[in-house]
Amino acid sequence: MFVFAPRSMAQSLIVAGVLSLASSAVANAASAADLEKIKSKLSMQDVLKAAKPSDWRPLDPQNTMYLDLEKGRVVIEFAPEFAPKNVANIKKLVREGYFDGLAMIRSHDNYVAQWGDADEKREFKTAEKKVEGEFTVKYANNAPFTRLPDVDGYAPLVGHVNGFAAGRDPKTQTTWLAHCYGAIGVARGNETDSGNGSSLYAVTGHAPRNLDRNITVVGKVVQGIELLSSLPRGKGALGFYEKAEERTPIKSVRMAADVPEAERLNIEMFRTDTPSFQALVEAQRNRGGEWYKFAANHIELCNVPVPVRVVK
Amino acid sequence: MFVFAPRSMAQSLIVAGVLSLASSAVANAASAADLEKIKSKLSMQDVLKAAKPSDWRPLDPQNTMYLDLEKGRVVIEFAPEFAPKNVANIKKLVREGYFDGLAMIRSHDNYVAQWGDADEKREFKTAEKKVEGEFTVKYANNAPFTRLPDVDGYAPLVGHVNGFAAGRDPKTQTTWLAHCYGAIGVARGNETDSGNGSSLYAVTGHAPRNLDRNITVVGKVVQGIELLSSLPRGKGALGFYEKAEERTPIKSVRMAADVPEAERLNIEMFRTDTPSFQALVEAQRNRGGEWYKFAANHIELCNVPVPVRVVK
Repeated sequence: MFVFAPRSMAQSLIVAGVLSLASSAVANAASAADLEKIKSKLSMQDVLKAAKPSDWRPLDPQNTMYLDLEKGRVVIEFAPEFAPKNVANIKKLVREGYFDGLAMIRSHDNYVAQWGDADEKREFKTAEKKVEGEFTVKYANNAPFTRLPDVDGYAPLVGHVNGFAAGRDPKTQTTWLAHCYGAIGVARGNETDSGNGSSLYAVTGHAPRNLDRNITVVGKVVQGIELLSSLPRGKGALGFYEKAEERTPIKSVRMAADVPEAERLNIEMFRTDTPSFQALVEAQRNRGGEWYKFAANHIELCNVPVPVRVVK
Repeated sequence: MFVFAPRSMAQSLIVAGVLSLASSAVANAASAADLEKIKSKLSMQDVLKAAKPSDWRPLDPQNTMYLDLEKGRVVIEFAPEFAPKNVANIKKLVREGYFDGLAMIRSHDNYVAQWGDADEKREFKTAEKKVEGEFTVKYANNAPFTRLPDVDGYAPLVGHVNGFAAGRDPKTQTTWLAHCYGAIGVARGNETDSGNGSSLYAVTGHAPRNLDRNITVVGKVVQGIELLSSLPRGKGALGFYEKAEERTPIKSVRMAADVPEAERLNIEMFRTDTPSFQALVEAQRNRGGEWYKFAANHIELCNVPVPVRVVK
């Protein structure tokens, strides 16, 4: 059974009538030499069909968090190479049970959904109260960067690191996670060390890339973002709920590694350091099929899908 | 009473603690000569405080549509200069009562919410069944274009026309509405004349700009987008609801001009052809205040807020 990331498949059509997709089957999309030949003839579906098992990687249970709500599970993978201290502190909070009994406290349309302790009175047992913001890190800390062929104005270079959308600045040799849809960040006050992971937000609207390099991004939602993005909007300032009863309770927050294996979701993410991923990007830069009449020949970082699948 | 467009105010802060905003009061932001001096010192709030009555324009009731759901009203303004035939046909559909008793048929996470006749069997009385797609129009048809100082890869030039985000291509002298959050488009099949306005969608996710120049955009949601973006997601293919009972019924669809004046909403939109708007864009390109540590010195078209207010 395949479950795809938000609008990864479906963005290829606004359907009024029949669904029609490019069907040029291709035996193997994984060779870099073939990429030039096939580009703009493949659909993303073709690329995925042709992908090899090695084009996928499992989520790391030590860096995967389950945020369970009444309606279902939100699966978040952290990218500790971008925010080691903040991720470590969040894991402490999770394991000391900090989030138990807390709730979604904010749903701000076209922006973020946020959870935590509305009263900010809950005690910290093992976690730090102040963690220095990790807004950027040095390249050296990072896994391979697959640069997008396209650029944008929010970063000198954009691309993907291990499945995560990232910006880079060659001048400062720094890199950072981008605020794309589904990105998870550490809410903070005005001081750069005022965040600690006890209140986290997920981007649920058009990418607020102006936040990049201003706040710590720790990972992204891999599955279940719709549970956060469809929450009723808060009517208070900045989308906070005004009354406790408006908040959606959190059932539990656990690291996947701490959940019995039988209860874990076996999720795989499409690798972003492969020729298959480059073929996928190319397919999305120039959509094929009968529906499209004009090819953008471009893709913006946050429009690049990174497919996920649940393996039974 | 002021009601702001999605995240126009609030995007300036992810709040964990105290809300802190640049407070440098300015007597008048409306002079072009002053723009250079004040830029990056003003917040958007400052610009709005300093705005003059002439910086706002009322919505045109002849081109404003009320989509009423149980939970409230979605206000849509059309931009007929970009899609005269399609807007005219939608008005016919509205006035012949086509949408009465229909429903929201699709809610596709991070993409679109769509309404219409799920069975596509309803009769057309006065409206056309086929309307040629108006994917681009010639400049000549258009009101003044306020170019953004920044560019993106989806269009040679981007900016605003009468409050609407638009792209332009000087080579072909064409212009088109961009698929930003809240944009309203005419669903179609593979043929360019297969749309007619009987099924419309609103963008409820990260801007799918790849659709630009591929489908007719007729306007945008000016108020109430959260009623569409927070709909439960459809679990069928492409986010369509699988069962009729999952659909949110439409109470009524009316043109504002056909609603008794006492029942109309007196909404004004910030003009986009003024020095005040340029000051607002500049404030958003380089956010001031205590919170921001890094200024993007850039803004992407769909991140530019066009504030609206309800005047009592």
